[in-house]
Amino acid sequence: MKIGYIQFNPVFGEKETNFHTVEKITKGVKADLLVLPELFATGYTFNSKIEAEQMSEKQGEETTNFLQDLSSSTRAILVGGFIEKINNKIFNAALVVNEKQVIGIYEKVHLFYKEKLWFEPGNRGFQVWKFQNWNLGVMICFDWIFPESCRSLSLQGADIIAHPANLVLPYCQRSMITRSLENRVFTITANRFGKEHRGQDNFSFSGGSQITDPSGNVLISAEKNETKVDIVDIDPSVAHNKQMNEYNNLFKDRRNQYYFL
Amino acid sequence: MKIGYIQFNPVFGEKETNFHTVEKITKGVKADLLVLPELFATGYTFNSKIEAEQMSEKQGEETTNFLQDLSSSTRAILVGGFIEKINNKIFNAALVVNEKQVIGIYEKVHLFYKEKLWFEPGNRGFQVWKFQNWNLGVMICFDWIFPESCRSLSLQGADIIAHPANLVLPYCQRSMITRSLENRVFTITANRFGKEHRGQDNFSFSGGSQITDPSGNVLISAEKNETKVDIVDIDPSVAHNKQMNEYNNLFKDRRNQYYFL
Repeated sequence: MKIGYIQFNPVFGEKETNFHTVEKITKGVKADLLVLPELFATGYTFNSKIEAEQMSEKQGEETTNFLQDLSSSTRAILVGGFIEKINNKIFNAALVVNEKQVIGIYEKVHLFYKEKLWFEPGNRGFQVWKFQNWNLGVMICFDWIFPESCRSLSLQGADIIAHPANLVLPYCQRSMITRSLENRVFTITANRFGKEHRGQDNFSFSGGSQITDPSGNVLISAEKNETKVDIVDIDPSVAHNKQMNEYNNLFKDRRNQYYFL
Repeated sequence: MKIGYIQFNPVFGEKETNFHTVEKITKGVKADLLVLPELFATGYTFNSKIEAEQMSEKQGEETTNFLQDLSSSTRAILVGGFIEKINNKIFNAALVVNEKQVIGIYEKVHLFYKEKLWFEPGNRGFQVWKFQNWNLGVMICFDWIFPESCRSLSLQGADIIAHPANLVLPYCQRSMITRSLENRVFTITANRFGKEHRGQDNFSFSGGSQITDPSGNVLISAEKNETKVDIVDIDPSVAHNKQMNEYNNLFKDRRNQYYFL
């Protein structure tokens, strides 16, 4: 199957502009799974909860519609970030859609920095969506630093972990190799690039989107500052097999009677 | 405090030779904590359980005595691997000693490859030993690939994780950066180098011992094939603080109601 990421530099607050950019760079692209960055339509650096609320949406509104159209033109399942509104709460979330429906929503479990001032911590937990011969897990950006995120998805059977991101710290890309290795899963980090200087915050996003295989090989990666769609062809069944050698199975060898939670 | 590793190429089955090598390369060395490789006195590549049993020891025998002497001459707490014998069972274990006593023993929780044919899986779990202003955790070699090993030690308060190793796979050194980062702890991987070709097994050990700080910086590392004692000066209290920024504390931000064990 063909899996990929879409890396670009979203313009803060300009959903239509960002939709148009994504539409343009995915022209002619066909794939089975495509991952967009965290909050790809809105930008990241809010100054207040009200500002973030103004860009929030319910499931089924404009970002859902855009992703479904993109699913239709690319034939891919799409994963992309949005600000989810439920009653008077907002979440840093990601939609999983195909052309016909919303398959699921993940709400970021571990909020980073001032996100805590506007977003509710996700309360849907780590979910896995099952397709014909592969299973999808989703985590968002800062979730990577908690090994429990990828682990919880992998133990539920995720073969591919989609990882929409707006990374500002430099460690993640290298650590995603460890995440793939320790769980024997494919990971797709779709990161944005560019700068956002708003209020007291001045973020520089690190690009470098990356797809890593269950043996820890980086199959493809983007430069720090490039608008890019990259697609690789993988066999997701490789991730079903947790056997490392004749004697070791990474999941069966776990001895959770000794693990602290 | 001064912490370090001792990297060398043990001779299979020659305890006295290996003790002598370590004695020679640590001449004049003073430190607070020194870590030796996994099974540093015996070598690694056994052909049978009987062979491993013949090199096994109870606590308080020759490897304990050697480490206590080394503690006396270096003034350091010593961590080093040995084959522990308890009744008719043998374990791939590590001793923690000072010049006066055995402080503790760790038995490898996750056995690698044919180790499963001779050793019992450790049943002491992940333990932390408390000293005046720092806490020590120990894991052995392959334990690294299970994020739960470092996590379980760190959640119990380990500031420094001693990691005696006989690494044959190429991924560990890079992944120890992730282990330090995700737990905000110091890690000391003391790896052996050299080759052992015995029976059907032909192992090449990767050296590259390494000390990493809680921010993921490699403070010092050895080459692939060098006999080396490296010491760095650290402040262990840096690892007490799990705060990453004004809003994020790596341990308080854990949401274990969503974690799968």
